[in-house]
Amino acid sequence: MAGDGSDQRALQYEQTLMYGRYTQELGVYAKEEAARLRESGQRRSVSRTLDLLEYDKGRCAKCRICTVRCQKFLISRVGEDWIFLILLGLLMALVSWVMDFCIAICLQAQKWMYGGLDSNVFLQYLAWVTYPVVLITFSAGFTQILAPQAVGSGIPEMKTILRGVVLKEYLTFKTFVAKVIGLTCALGSGMPLGKEGPFVHIASLCAALLSKFMSLFGGIYENESRNIEMLAAACAVGVGCCFAAPIGGVLFSIEVTSTFFAVRNYWRGFFAATFSAFIFRVLAVWNRDEETITALFKTSFRLDFPFDLQELPAFAVIGIANGFGGALFVYLNRLIVQFMRKQKAINRFLMKKRLLYPALVTLLISTLTFPPGFGQFMAGKLTQKESLVTLLDNRTWAKQGIAEEFDYIGHSEAWKHPQVNVFVTLVLFIVMKFWMSALATTIPVPCGAFMPVFVIGAAFGRLVGESMAAWFPDGIHTDGTIYPIVPGGYAVVGAAALSGAVTHTVSTAVIVFELTGQISHILPVMIAVILANAVAQSLQPSLYDSIIRIKKLPYLPELGWGHHEKYNIRVEDIMVRDVRYITLNCSYRDLHNVLLTGHLKTLALVESTESMILLGSIERAQLQALLSLQLGRPRRLAYIRERAVEDKKRLSVVSNDSSENSSHRASQEVRFQISTEDSSLSPTRPVPLKPLKPALKRSSVVERPTEIPTGPHDHSGIALKNLFCASPDTEALEKNNNMDSPMSPELRRPPKRVRISVVDDVDVEDDMTIREITEWEEKQLDEQVNFNNCKIDPAPFQLVERTSLHKTHTIFSLLGLDHAFVTSIGRLIGVVSLKELRKAIEGSVTVKGAKVRPPLASFRDSGTSSSENEATELHKLWDRHKSMPLPREHTPSESDEKSQ
Amino acid sequence: MAGDGSDQRALQYEQTLMYGRYTQELGVYAKEEAARLRESGQRRSVSRTLDLLEYDKGRCAKCRICTVRCQKFLISRVGEDWIFLILLGLLMALVSWVMDFCIAICLQAQKWMYGGLDSNVFLQYLAWVTYPVVLITFSAGFTQILAPQAVGSGIPEMKTILRGVVLKEYLTFKTFVAKVIGLTCALGSGMPLGKEGPFVHIASLCAALLSKFMSLFGGIYENESRNIEMLAAACAVGVGCCFAAPIGGVLFSIEVTSTFFAVRNYWRGFFAATFSAFIFRVLAVWNRDEETITALFKTSFRLDFPFDLQELPAFAVIGIANGFGGALFVYLNRLIVQFMRKQKAINRFLMKKRLLYPALVTLLISTLTFPPGFGQFMAGKLTQKESLVTLLDNRTWAKQGIAEEFDYIGHSEAWKHPQVNVFVTLVLFIVMKFWMSALATTIPVPCGAFMPVFVIGAAFGRLVGESMAAWFPDGIHTDGTIYPIVPGGYAVVGAAALSGAVTHTVSTAVIVFELTGQISHILPVMIAVILANAVAQSLQPSLYDSIIRIKKLPYLPELGWGHHEKYNIRVEDIMVRDVRYITLNCSYRDLHNVLLTGHLKTLALVESTESMILLGSIERAQLQALLSLQLGRPRRLAYIRERAVEDKKRLSVVSNDSSENSSHRASQEVRFQISTEDSSLSPTRPVPLKPLKPALKRSSVVERPTEIPTGPHDHSGIALKNLFCASPDTEALEKNNNMDSPMSPELRRPPKRVRISVVDDVDVEDDMTIREITEWEEKQLDEQVNFNNCKIDPAPFQLVERTSLHKTHTIFSLLGLDHAFVTSIGRLIGVVSLKELRKAIEGSVTVKGAKVRPPLASFRDSGTSSSENEATELHKLWDRHKSMPLPREHTPSESDEKSQ
Repeated sequence: MAGDGSDQRALQYEQTLMYGRYTQELGVYAKEEAARLRESGQRRSVSRTLDLLEYDKGRCAKCRICTVRCQKFLISRVGEDWIFLILLGLLMALVSWVMDFCIAICLQAQKWMYGGLDSNVFLQYLAWVTYPVVLITFSAGFTQILAPQAVGSGIPEMKTILRGVVLKEYLTFKTFVAKVIGLTCALGSGMPLGKEGPFVHIASLCAALLSKFMSLFGGIYENESRNIEMLAAACAVGVGCCFAAPIGGVLFSIEVTSTFFAVRNYWRGFFAATFSAFIFRVLAVWNRDEETITALFKTSFRLDFPFDLQELPAFAVIGIANGFGGALFVYLNRLIVQFMRKQKAINRFLMKKRLLYPALVTLLISTLTFPPGFGQFMAGKLTQKESLVTLLDNRTWAKQGIAEEFDYIGHSEAWKHPQVNVFVTLVLFIVMKFWMSALATTIPVPCGAFMPVFVIGAAFGRLVGESMAAWFPDGIHTDGTIYPIVPGGYAVVGAAALSGAVTHTVSTAVIVFELTGQISHILPVMIAVILANAVAQSLQPSLYDSIIRIKKLPYLPELGWGHHEKYNIRVEDIMVRDVRYITLNCSYRDLHNVLLTGHLKTLALVESTESMILLGSIERAQLQALLSLQLGRPRRLAYIRERAVEDKKRLSVVSNDSSENSSHRASQEVRFQISTEDSSLSPTRPVPLKPLKPALKRSSVVERPTEIPTGPHDHSGIALKNLFCASPDTEALEKNNNMDSPMSPELRRPPKRVRISVVDDVDVEDDMTIREITEWEEKQLDEQVNFNNCKIDPAPFQLVERTSLHKTHTIFSLLGLDHAFVTSIGRLIGVVSLKELRKAIEGSVTVKGAKVRPPLASFRDSGTSSSENEATELHKLWDRHKSMPLPREHTPSESDEKSQ
Repeated sequence: MAGDGSDQRALQYEQTLMYGRYTQELGVYAKEEAARLRESGQRRSVSRTLDLLEYDKGRCAKCRICTVRCQKFLISRVGEDWIFLILLGLLMALVSWVMDFCIAICLQAQKWMYGGLDSNVFLQYLAWVTYPVVLITFSAGFTQILAPQAVGSGIPEMKTILRGVVLKEYLTFKTFVAKVIGLTCALGSGMPLGKEGPFVHIASLCAALLSKFMSLFGGIYENESRNIEMLAAACAVGVGCCFAAPIGGVLFSIEVTSTFFAVRNYWRGFFAATFSAFIFRVLAVWNRDEETITALFKTSFRLDFPFDLQELPAFAVIGIANGFGGALFVYLNRLIVQFMRKQKAINRFLMKKRLLYPALVTLLISTLTFPPGFGQFMAGKLTQKESLVTLLDNRTWAKQGIAEEFDYIGHSEAWKHPQVNVFVTLVLFIVMKFWMSALATTIPVPCGAFMPVFVIGAAFGRLVGESMAAWFPDGIHTDGTIYPIVPGGYAVVGAAALSGAVTHTVSTAVIVFELTGQISHILPVMIAVILANAVAQSLQPSLYDSIIRIKKLPYLPELGWGHHEKYNIRVEDIMVRDVRYITLNCSYRDLHNVLLTGHLKTLALVESTESMILLGSIERAQLQALLSLQLGRPRRLAYIRERAVEDKKRLSVVSNDSSENSSHRASQEVRFQISTEDSSLSPTRPVPLKPLKPALKRSSVVERPTEIPTGPHDHSGIALKNLFCASPDTEALEKNNNMDSPMSPELRRPPKRVRISVVDDVDVEDDMTIREITEWEEKQLDEQVNFNNCKIDPAPFQLVERTSLHKTHTIFSLLGLDHAFVTSIGRLIGVVSLKELRKAIEGSVTVKGAKVRPPLASFRDSGTSSSENEATELHKLWDRHKSMPLPREHTPSESDEKSQ
């Protein structure tokens, strides 16, 4: 048995390589890797010290000792959190600043080209259009080739990662390079794209890489929960150094990435984000862009009378309208993605020429913004930053327009059109930018939607403000002093409200204060943001949640406001009662059957079928390893050797039936039994790849097919192969399957990737026929399982039947669970996974296999059927103890309030 | 058996009334109560509708129907969260505004009195001193009489309540009245006290009362987790409407009250706090105090060049100095409290005259601030608000002082002294106010320390700013333009830093932005606040945590920054291995013994001593009820009846020993066995009451002694009495005992409050002698326990041996646990309570009874002693299943990473 250990481990390792996506397995791997690296690092540092001593021969000994000590001290200090956070902040500030610098150069280059060709409109047009098309195409191609994971915002993925799901290749150096370069090009093109979302991803990448780098020095960087904490801080840094908004950054990152957050992470975030924002702004001062540290889009509204109380209805209107606008934006964005996916003809065409779609979209958008063309009606020549600066201007445009004294200074000139009113320009700007932004954010380049939405919101606010200013030229206030209306303030309110509505956050309010450097409009902004959120949240999910759903990432919907019925649904109403389990004394055949039928990542281990006492849970991979071990070639060879030693009298008593068939039939029988749960998931049906699908999951399938050998000993494990074939790609699917059953079609592939590593035993010849093998395997399957080498999780998370949905949701999101067993006095009675929870929250509690009850059915006293059911089953357990009367729970409705 | 149910329930009810402090039991009670109220409410509303119909006879029928429908609609809407939040916000804004109004009147009255008597200094002094002494004494007396729970800040208590502990009488109407009136008087006296902390408490009171009131209309108000959520929102409202700072309020309340925070609560907080702040400011506009909605302490620093980059070191110095200052303040405050407690002579004297201490402190402070006296050197005539306004002034005092042109306007004049420099005035102000504030906050009136600390911080910042201005009269900037230094900006930074240091929060930064209406100093403020926090957190706990420790409230210390060793401590290093448990087939004697010895709130129920499989946990009270039922009078009477029916032949076979003695001896034996854990807690030792002890826990002991009857049937349960005597006041202690073992001495009282309700059975005469009773009881104790009527918690929270301390802390604080069982493959092997966790975090892992290991001992592989230990014990379980080989965990270091 001991000799087979290495074989089994090799197999496990193979599986890790092949399907290795889990926190646990990766964690082990990371630890080993880190230990290896640390060791080599120590060796290196020792040799370095020696070198130093060698080199310093000439100097005095004291100096040398001092240097070595300093070095040691520094290395020991490297482990401290604050060092890490400062480094992270510094790095991100530099990245942000350099990127801004490059983007500015790109945009200037476009302007210069456009300006230089003003003799010929056609050439001008060509220059105006070609430049962004080239940049976007390059960005899309570069990202696609280097790391397709870098596409898009990154916030949805970070939300998923912070929830505890490990997304493959999302935090690698390649992704970092692809994201940074891709984003710079994308933003340099002048398309309506943002840098905020990608910056969250970049900061997380930075944190992950820095963490990996720092683990060369100290041991704590191996700790996974610490790394998650650091990622949370990194998200804050990302937003913070993007807008020089540390407070808003922390809050925004909390709102978009967490359901629950630890106040200690919030600390880390504040520290790192402040440092990062500080360095970011100091760089600008050093570069002589600014005289001192100020806000990014500094405004200068009057302080003594920022707004009148009677203007509040207008602010409320902005809030409500922007709420609808935000919901519409999210809807439009999703609609475009889904439309592009559904159109098979377009799809097939675009799939072939991957870069065509970005190029076409860019062409369309840049054509429409061409300043001598349609662009003149929508301030097309302004970059995003310039538009925002002009929109937040504290002068009033409309009033001056009425007075025929149009003295726009600098960029504001772009809003002026000889024939057309400034209102028309603003309306056109809003409408055109709205769909352009929604369309542009579907391009597969690294890009965010926050900034475009922010600008649109500001434009809308400005529109309302200008209207108000035109309506009340002398302000509303009636007490003598004239306080004219400040349309810039409306723009601030609008920007915060629309971006808040799209992202479902209130912290955009704080971001605008930090961006503009003025907090005088705090109450209007807060009111508008809250109203916008209230409207948008009741209509659509947030943009990030929408993308999570589109990308089919695992998610757990939020419990909305005031869904009171959620308090009344209990776990027993949603749990799956037909749990797959294995018993302590089960045979390998049982194991085989259970593995064939279930698809949960972990299986419950109970004492016996009678008692059903939950002892722990075992990972699927462990069981597969057990089974492989039992049916593997080494064991069979050992058997052959044994047989050779024994007499030859029981040579060939063949079983009547082809055992492969029988085992297959058996497996089908069992499949039939439980297929209520996942009948839609027919695993062998190949589905064509779809274009525009974010590359998130494809990589694992597309990139690795060559690695999978179909070795010569494929016939060695027939039942095993049967197992792997029947539940294909199980490992890779588990996590997803578990959470997100209607999965992306790319993952439902026929199982061609089975690899069973075999250590050849050269001294015996494998002369068994297939029939003999199947016979031997049948025999092996009847043996009792030896859990000796199996990793058992001794305390899986347990819920009680009466735990409320509200509490279950809290616990799932707090602890990042993907399933929990439901027990009653030690007995396993059900299981709840994310799937059930999600269905229950989203309203369709009609899960197959789950008992559906009306929400109010849980208000029951101790005498109802459920308790009695339990009682009859409990008898079995009880009967072992002198047939005593059963314990009955006294006040059942409160029993769950204490267990958690 | 069924007949005894009502009796038992009556007993349970009694216990709830007597010791009822637990979430669960109160929950049941509240539900019953709410159901009753709702029912009566419905009846009332029906009758009201009828009345309405009666009354509206004259009008048209449509109108009537419409009215009824509207009413119905409104009542149905009342359940919505947002209605509740709006009502809460409105209410709190009104309370805040009215209080501010009253405080202003009080302060004006004092000024008027002081000003009117300017002919005679002595009379002036009398007026100046008497007024605050009377107000403070009234406040202290009123609070003491009406609701001693209203004393102090309230934030520590709210932190405890939000952690899931139910503090008695803390959220009642009486407390509300006491807090509001007490606080108004206390602040009206002009002492250096704040309103912020108490406002958090008042808002929570409001929310609790409103919730109670609203539950008359809808059902959801009964839900406890919803109430906790609403309390969290209420804390935000409290801060928000106190400072008109919604964002800062939300963040501050999160930081001071939570360890983990749900983003959905944060939403509620934002909504309610914004609404509240809005109404609060609108009231000021309506009252013509302000022209429009602006910040409370509006500043008008220049926007274009708020500060120079080279001023940042000065800001950093403010941060670091204020960090030390904050730690010193907390230390000083604690020192004063502890000093007052220790001085027995003073204590005894002050105890007698409860109001003497407040009066003396007030006298001292007001004497020192007397303007013609020492007060002239420390701007003594300014109220707290006036001081703050002058400190945040945007003009520079020192420069003008140098230029001999001293033109202070308005209140600023107070800082000017003919003989003394403004620097001396500021230094004296800081030093005097520092100890005065630390002293004043120990007065037993409703008061906070935030505002005084804020003012001191502002003064310190101003001092640094004025020094800088004197040092660089033309500013630091060298590029031609002269930007003079703005000392007001330094004051803002100082205020945020010191208040941040004292409370250990960074959100004070946001609060100052909202208070001053300017965000231009964001980076200096953030840097100073972070530095101040870093210094203060490494020296002292926050003021609120300090108070929590002084008041001996249950708490869980935070995991500090960068305590890496915490990641390496595992549960097995800190758990108590000697767990009290009961088995399914135990006798009542076992139960009795277990109850006598343990003090945990809940006891583990295992299958049997051999298997140790954890089936659930039972509350102590349940077991006590079981035992009372078994030994209670009704059962004994039934026995007498039975005996009467039977023949008289087994009349008096007395046991040789006095059974009471024997049972007592047995209990002592067991006590000896386990007394390692709590040997310091000798339960029958009476400890004298200590003065100045916050009234938090006394009430339960002091207020109710009259209710406890020593009925005529006291002799009916000797063993029972023994039980209750040996573990006195168990119910009331449990929660505390569990969390906070070195408890406040008031709680360790001899048990005089045992009450066993007895339903008399009139037809039989209780003619048993004490000897007979004990004999009968001995017999009863040998019977097997019938768990029939026992409420079993079927899934208590379980941890694994290898769960890290970090994760354990997270789970405990997330779920508000006070203990968790440690299991290994279903078997109970230990228990971890808050006590152990706290000791482990605070560094002294040398808990008695817990196995102490060096932190790194947990890095062990599968072959070490612990696993083998487990294996040998597991054999017992395993042997029932055909003596198979034991399962062994493969890679033990990762097994815990998946269970939670």
